[in-house]
Amino acid sequence: YSLNKRNVHLTYSNRTSQKNFVPPLDTFSRRHIGPSKDEQEYQLSTLGYKDFESFLNDVIPQNVRAKENNKKHFPSFDFDTHKPHTAPNYSESEFGELAENVANKNKLVKTLIGMGYYNVKIPPVIIRNVFENPEWYTQYTPYQAEISQGRLESMMNYQTMITDLTGLSISNASLLDEATAASEAMVMIMANDRKKRKTFLVDSNIYPNTLSVLRTRARGFNIDVKVVDISSEIITANEKDSFGILVQYPAADGSIFDYSELASAAHASNMHVVAATDLLALTLMKTPGEWGADVAVGSTQRFGLPMGFGGPHAGFFACNDEFKRKLPGRLVGLSKDRLGNPAYRLALQTREQHIRREKATSNICTAQALLANMSAFYAIYHGPEGLKHIASRIYSLTNILKRALESAGYDISNKNHFFDTLTINVQCADSILQRALAYGYNLRKVSDGVVSLSMDESITNEDLSHLFSIFEIPSTPETFIENLSDGKSISSVEQLPVSAFPKELRRQTPYLQHVVFNRYHSETELMRYIRYLQSKDLSLAHAMIPLGSCTMKLNAVSEMNPVSNPKFANIHPYAPEDQVHGYKYLINDLGLMLKNLTGFDAASFQPNSGASGEYAGLSVIRAYQKSIGEGHRNICLIPVSAHGTNPASAAMAGLKVVPVKCLNNGNLDFEDLKAKAEKHSNHLAAFMVTYPSTFGIFEHGVKETLNVIHQNGGQVYFDGANMNAMVGLCKAGDLGADVCHFNLHKTFCIPHGGGGPGVGPICVKSHLADFLPSNPVIHCGGQKSIGSVSSSPYGSASILPVSWAYMRMMGLDGLRDASKAALLNANYMAARLAPYYKLVYTNDKGRCAHEFILDAREFKVSAGIEATDIAKRLQDYSFHAPTLSWPITNTLMVEPTESESMYEMDRFCDALISIRQEIREIEEGKQPKGNNLLTNAPHPQRDLVREEWDRPYSRERAVYPVPILSERKFWPTVARLDDAYGDKNLFCTCAPMQ
Amino acid sequence: YSLNKRNVHLTYSNRTSQKNFVPPLDTFSRRHIGPSKDEQEYQLSTLGYKDFESFLNDVIPQNVRAKENNKKHFPSFDFDTHKPHTAPNYSESEFGELAENVANKNKLVKTLIGMGYYNVKIPPVIIRNVFENPEWYTQYTPYQAEISQGRLESMMNYQTMITDLTGLSISNASLLDEATAASEAMVMIMANDRKKRKTFLVDSNIYPNTLSVLRTRARGFNIDVKVVDISSEIITANEKDSFGILVQYPAADGSIFDYSELASAAHASNMHVVAATDLLALTLMKTPGEWGADVAVGSTQRFGLPMGFGGPHAGFFACNDEFKRKLPGRLVGLSKDRLGNPAYRLALQTREQHIRREKATSNICTAQALLANMSAFYAIYHGPEGLKHIASRIYSLTNILKRALESAGYDISNKNHFFDTLTINVQCADSILQRALAYGYNLRKVSDGVVSLSMDESITNEDLSHLFSIFEIPSTPETFIENLSDGKSISSVEQLPVSAFPKELRRQTPYLQHVVFNRYHSETELMRYIRYLQSKDLSLAHAMIPLGSCTMKLNAVSEMNPVSNPKFANIHPYAPEDQVHGYKYLINDLGLMLKNLTGFDAASFQPNSGASGEYAGLSVIRAYQKSIGEGHRNICLIPVSAHGTNPASAAMAGLKVVPVKCLNNGNLDFEDLKAKAEKHSNHLAAFMVTYPSTFGIFEHGVKETLNVIHQNGGQVYFDGANMNAMVGLCKAGDLGADVCHFNLHKTFCIPHGGGGPGVGPICVKSHLADFLPSNPVIHCGGQKSIGSVSSSPYGSASILPVSWAYMRMMGLDGLRDASKAALLNANYMAARLAPYYKLVYTNDKGRCAHEFILDAREFKVSAGIEATDIAKRLQDYSFHAPTLSWPITNTLMVEPTESESMYEMDRFCDALISIRQEIREIEEGKQPKGNNLLTNAPHPQRDLVREEWDRPYSRERAVYPVPILSERKFWPTVARLDDAYGDKNLFCTCAPMQ
Repeated sequence: YSLNKRNVHLTYSNRTSQKNFVPPLDTFSRRHIGPSKDEQEYQLSTLGYKDFESFLNDVIPQNVRAKENNKKHFPSFDFDTHKPHTAPNYSESEFGELAENVANKNKLVKTLIGMGYYNVKIPPVIIRNVFENPEWYTQYTPYQAEISQGRLESMMNYQTMITDLTGLSISNASLLDEATAASEAMVMIMANDRKKRKTFLVDSNIYPNTLSVLRTRARGFNIDVKVVDISSEIITANEKDSFGILVQYPAADGSIFDYSELASAAHASNMHVVAATDLLALTLMKTPGEWGADVAVGSTQRFGLPMGFGGPHAGFFACNDEFKRKLPGRLVGLSKDRLGNPAYRLALQTREQHIRREKATSNICTAQALLANMSAFYAIYHGPEGLKHIASRIYSLTNILKRALESAGYDISNKNHFFDTLTINVQCADSILQRALAYGYNLRKVSDGVVSLSMDESITNEDLSHLFSIFEIPSTPETFIENLSDGKSISSVEQLPVSAFPKELRRQTPYLQHVVFNRYHSETELMRYIRYLQSKDLSLAHAMIPLGSCTMKLNAVSEMNPVSNPKFANIHPYAPEDQVHGYKYLINDLGLMLKNLTGFDAASFQPNSGASGEYAGLSVIRAYQKSIGEGHRNICLIPVSAHGTNPASAAMAGLKVVPVKCLNNGNLDFEDLKAKAEKHSNHLAAFMVTYPSTFGIFEHGVKETLNVIHQNGGQVYFDGANMNAMVGLCKAGDLGADVCHFNLHKTFCIPHGGGGPGVGPICVKSHLADFLPSNPVIHCGGQKSIGSVSSSPYGSASILPVSWAYMRMMGLDGLRDASKAALLNANYMAARLAPYYKLVYTNDKGRCAHEFILDAREFKVSAGIEATDIAKRLQDYSFHAPTLSWPITNTLMVEPTESESMYEMDRFCDALISIRQEIREIEEGKQPKGNNLLTNAPHPQRDLVREEWDRPYSRERAVYPVPILSERKFWPTVARLDDAYGDKNLFCTCAPMQ
Repeated sequence: YSLNKRNVHLTYSNRTSQKNFVPPLDTFSRRHIGPSKDEQEYQLSTLGYKDFESFLNDVIPQNVRAKENNKKHFPSFDFDTHKPHTAPNYSESEFGELAENVANKNKLVKTLIGMGYYNVKIPPVIIRNVFENPEWYTQYTPYQAEISQGRLESMMNYQTMITDLTGLSISNASLLDEATAASEAMVMIMANDRKKRKTFLVDSNIYPNTLSVLRTRARGFNIDVKVVDISSEIITANEKDSFGILVQYPAADGSIFDYSELASAAHASNMHVVAATDLLALTLMKTPGEWGADVAVGSTQRFGLPMGFGGPHAGFFACNDEFKRKLPGRLVGLSKDRLGNPAYRLALQTREQHIRREKATSNICTAQALLANMSAFYAIYHGPEGLKHIASRIYSLTNILKRALESAGYDISNKNHFFDTLTINVQCADSILQRALAYGYNLRKVSDGVVSLSMDESITNEDLSHLFSIFEIPSTPETFIENLSDGKSISSVEQLPVSAFPKELRRQTPYLQHVVFNRYHSETELMRYIRYLQSKDLSLAHAMIPLGSCTMKLNAVSEMNPVSNPKFANIHPYAPEDQVHGYKYLINDLGLMLKNLTGFDAASFQPNSGASGEYAGLSVIRAYQKSIGEGHRNICLIPVSAHGTNPASAAMAGLKVVPVKCLNNGNLDFEDLKAKAEKHSNHLAAFMVTYPSTFGIFEHGVKETLNVIHQNGGQVYFDGANMNAMVGLCKAGDLGADVCHFNLHKTFCIPHGGGGPGVGPICVKSHLADFLPSNPVIHCGGQKSIGSVSSSPYGSASILPVSWAYMRMMGLDGLRDASKAALLNANYMAARLAPYYKLVYTNDKGRCAHEFILDAREFKVSAGIEATDIAKRLQDYSFHAPTLSWPITNTLMVEPTESESMYEMDRFCDALISIRQEIREIEEGKQPKGNNLLTNAPHPQRDLVREEWDRPYSRERAVYPVPILSERKFWPTVARLDDAYGDKNLFCTCAPMQ
């Protein structure tokens, strides 16, 4: 991953004491920022400015600007001495060495702790062609379906895989992780319980992290999570209060129970059943669908995703038909395009939280698209037979080890039925763990006299031998197996002894019979399929994706490289603390920089999406208020302009949302806010503010506004969505925020992955630090923590190196330059477009912040054209549309980011100007309404091929409206989607094999 | 590069003593071979066979088949104990660990030895998007220009870079390395010398490896290489005999001389001047073109290519207009397509050796396309300013060090003028080298009292400090620089003191002013440019490339991974032996396997292309014959059906080619051979045989044929081009070959890289081992070696891990399975196509070997269609054409390889069958001759967009002749090329900036 590496080690303190007397040439910020210094001067001059300072003065209010101290470098601390120092910015090659050194502080010990995280063998063809391929990881969420058919097909494969393996009828295209998926299931069932019951029964034999997240999540909904040893009797006894039950299958200790009777009892009591389950085990075991579960959740980690110290992985969620239109998260469905050809798109979007706002019972927004796609490719590569082989081998080896342990006198707790996990009673767990460590393994300590271990696809001959030695089994696996198999030699998994899964639990139904899971088993075929899908999708590797509020900037290779480092990728989240010094250092160092940038005192990296950050932050506020006797505070003020997640998150945290108005100029209505804050003074819990505003303006008076909140007893939640305008220029903490979340996948360069992963750490002022999220297995978070908000201690830890790389290479001055460039780029584009489109909002100096909104409303009357038509027509120009109809219907919000070059911005402006001309032709009657270049857009190749050309414009104009396109064009692969058709005829899995 | 790695080390002997009682699941051969076992059974049954054995009996003559011992595993030897053992096949994950372990046996020591190899900082954006991107590295040579415009544009950029930097008017698109490029220059000048002079003057101040290759190459042409201290006087004194001179610029000791007078003197004597030069230095120095060189050669290694223990790197070759139509190697030129749009293609192909055969003065065949492209992207990313910065920084640091050394009392040999290299007189070179090593550096020992070192772009503050310490300079660089710069602080390269290059040598001319070198300086822009170019080119990531005799098979990720490992990539070829144990082990182990496969006794990896292997092998034969007093033997028998490189290589080795006829059935005319062997018995040097024959048949009687050669005193040279049919099934050594070359880029999975690198090691019988190629700097090769055939000791060492990976993962049984699959695939396709096309040759059982030839000759009369038309029409079906008109005009030779799946082979057969139907329509008069689907093919998008559609077929039929194409189509980006136009109007550099 780093061709430039050599084995001379950077010692942090040495390096940093040196003066930079030989400036390196591979400085990063000039590669990250699109326009050169010369071009920026030109940009400033077109706006009428002589220098950056006068431009910034017109953009950012004086009292909002951080006292610019011109510091160039972030603080850091020495790895070995822990002494603080100021770290200079790293060049790309220096950073490569730093990352390598920090990774080397993590110790790779083979970890059999299990508990939802397993060693995997990621097929190299998937690593290189998906995981390390910018055409996959820089895609945006597939809202523009016509230029996203590749990953939509892949997500459809994923959904098919999940439904097939769980035996349920519908699956979404991933949630964040297993524990939050379980929580979503709990809340969905609760919300749909006709009897409005409020208790959720959870079997005691589940993972502690799942339980912790359920408990945190339950709080905001007043759900009572009751941990029980579940049985039909318990169900009957609780039927008055309980709306549902959750069991783990296989259970946390490795046992497998047939829950059929339990499910019948539950259904008899009108309760619903959730199964937290394991996809690999399901290739052998009866499915949850078959024994009657209504919902199945879990993690796809062991389908080819690196453990990565806890994430990101795709959480899965499948349910039966009853919840078809209720399930949370993104759902891909088949529909058709305007030419009648089949085409995929996101289905039932009206279910989503950004639409339902405070009525939502979930704030789920992003998914784990990249990881879901990788796991789908894993299943495709192995196919049903291959997956079954992997599972059978694991089961067989577990069974061999179990028998050997028993023959050596051990008592196995889960002796009846198991898949990969054995819970073993021992004399002294600690001494077993020490022996294991000496052999190079981490096992799980369950209690002083109990250890457990989980087998996985990575187990080798050597591993099995070592396990025999660790447990002092008086035999070698070789002879033990020979005895079991009567001396027959083993050349395939089927020949392993004791490989037959118990008949009473055995899966009898076929799965993954579709063509896609049965064709791409050679590396050549899978590579081509991956590349074929990718060729249908527009990503940052093709063109700018100017999505307002989404900050689609460069995801640099040098930032991505450490993510592939096995010493970051292959660490179990519950590995002993002395094996993860590298991660700890990185997370602390990243936190140090984020706090420094924003003026906060403590950080949590557990939230694994922006929405999760909002929810965590609000929960922290509530916990704090409760701790000081103000637990009754339950009003949350939110501007009407806020992103839909804001009210959804507030509702989930148990807050009542009171909307605050906006003025006609887009600014917050300060009088309305003041009035409402004062009115609710006794119950005011929090105010959620996005700054610069969701309209893309640095509003004046933000400090006064936040003061009012504090004066009325409320806390200020700062939504970091627009942080890309602020970094290095203004500090949220100084403005008066108490808590803030960061979208590391926006401002801090974590790639969007085609719809996730996202990462949403929060920073808080000191008074809130005690309440930060914790984990039941690993010590982290605050003393009076709200509990867990996601499965693993540090959320999506394995991609934090991306943001860390970005900040360490850019440095404070580089980040400040990036923010300035982002503001300048947006204003440059706004100025170029202003003669052609109305800008919805600007500030009193006529400036926007890092994004701006183009008005399309007038075209509705003048030409019958809506913003969507412009968006689709942009596809014909090889562009992704800006953010559509948000925050205002029938507008387009453009955010170029600092990474876009003059060349690309001009190309985009030229496209929009050309489209304005096309609209004018409709306005002037030269093109008919309803049958023109825009309403018929996009024009795929198939459209062009038709013999009959009955359009009032030429083929050439349809597809090559500007000359460069005939050289360099990205094609939409289908015509405009028919969303309504697909929602009416919901079809969310692959077509079965003929 | 390996997400699956952990730090438990495989000990080779341990591992191999274990019985495989837990079979791993990530076995490689089933991923490498396209058809599954079930599908192979189906394939066999369609051919009428019950089992593989009876099929093989019909394909391979009994006496050719190796006694199939059913051995599964190759021999190997233990790394630590050197004991031989049999190594089982490695699974993909096991191999990843093995490769890591072997790499770790190499020691990364910062090497400042220079001599043509330098540390580099490869921009990460190029590593990930080109070097590690199958869409770049699995492309074939761009003979099919319409689906290769991306890399043709890139090569044009490369040519522009070379001409601009050297100041000459034309450049080819790369040769193999600096030393062979110098040899090509020598021979080109000699061949064009009107006075037929035969002496070549070489300045003594040149690299020893260049000299060694010149000397070897000179032998076959009877050129006298005369090493002199070159001067105008020497030139005049030698003008009667000498056709040219070669100087190194900067010279080997780091000196820089202005050769203007020298060049004038040479030209006055009608001699030509070759400059071996350094591209980076040329950003500062007067160009060879300016001072009068006629040819400039060198290596682009330091333009962002890993040292890789010596290669592969692109050798460059530029010359003045006089040699415009004479220069060897591939040349990209601008032409136009049939629609009149500009389009690139390979120019002047009639110059190439495969056309000129024994009249050729060069056998150059492949290029180093991937490396040339990478170096062009390096120049594009940095632009003229950036390159100049890099060079200035190097020069400045060298100057600082020089002054510091002088102030400490050292005498510098090249004190007058230098760029990056200092040759320093010291008391004891060995003790300096030891001190250097203690600090982590390799310097060059020139002699007992002289060391030298070369600076490069990777030099850091720390390095400079260390160099000061190594030479015990009584100052730190920091204070030394401060003194030099009067205490000013340094924040840019320009501010470094002593950075001004001496005026008298300074370059005054601008360079790289074209748009392409001045737009893509941000990572986003370069990534998009790379991806845009790539999108125009068909590669194995899109479809099969069924090129007969080229063996385009899978280049698996797990094979490619080690190439990115810094411990393979960043090793200098002249690093001390104890730092390269890993490479040595790998090369030995690979040699062991190749010898085992083929029945030879010794191997050389120095030839860095197949043609270079031929030339080396023939030279070895000649040296051997000379050693036994048979140096007069100079006749080389070559079948008329042989590849053009065969006669070209023979001619280069000083042999006289006597062609041997073929029979009508394609087989060698045994009688003719026998007659000629006997006739030339006294002078017979060698017979070159390709087996299976270039007609794709395992001929009977090969053993008898080779016997006849031996009986008549000749040696047998075995061309390994068709080795993919033989591996594990027949052994060239057993058949009677004395020497054989391997195309590792065909049979052994090294990717073709869009036209190189290739690798052509040779294996020989024991009597030839003493004569194998050597290197003047590093001990390798035979005792009575022929000298060097390429720049570095082990040729393209850094890509040998690919073949090693392939063989170690496949094992002997896997390779045998691959050969069987390759034979079966070819026969399956031949059988499917036989009802539609005439097969030119089959054996007496109606079978072909691993490839077959389809006849298109009859269509010329029946439909006015030639093979080319079918090839171009195949592009419309999204396929690369088979090999065209070789070995027989107007035919198509198809080789599927084992990696292609049934699905892909059927898709290809369906396309050809559909095309046959299209031809039939012409034959039947339904489509006119000369204006039909084939003659107008390919149909690019631009074609389709035109309003007027005057074709006798529909748009849809033109571009979607089979339904799947409307879903999944790879488009040609231009219409058919007009080759003649481009050759007449030769234009081989980018258009200058407007």
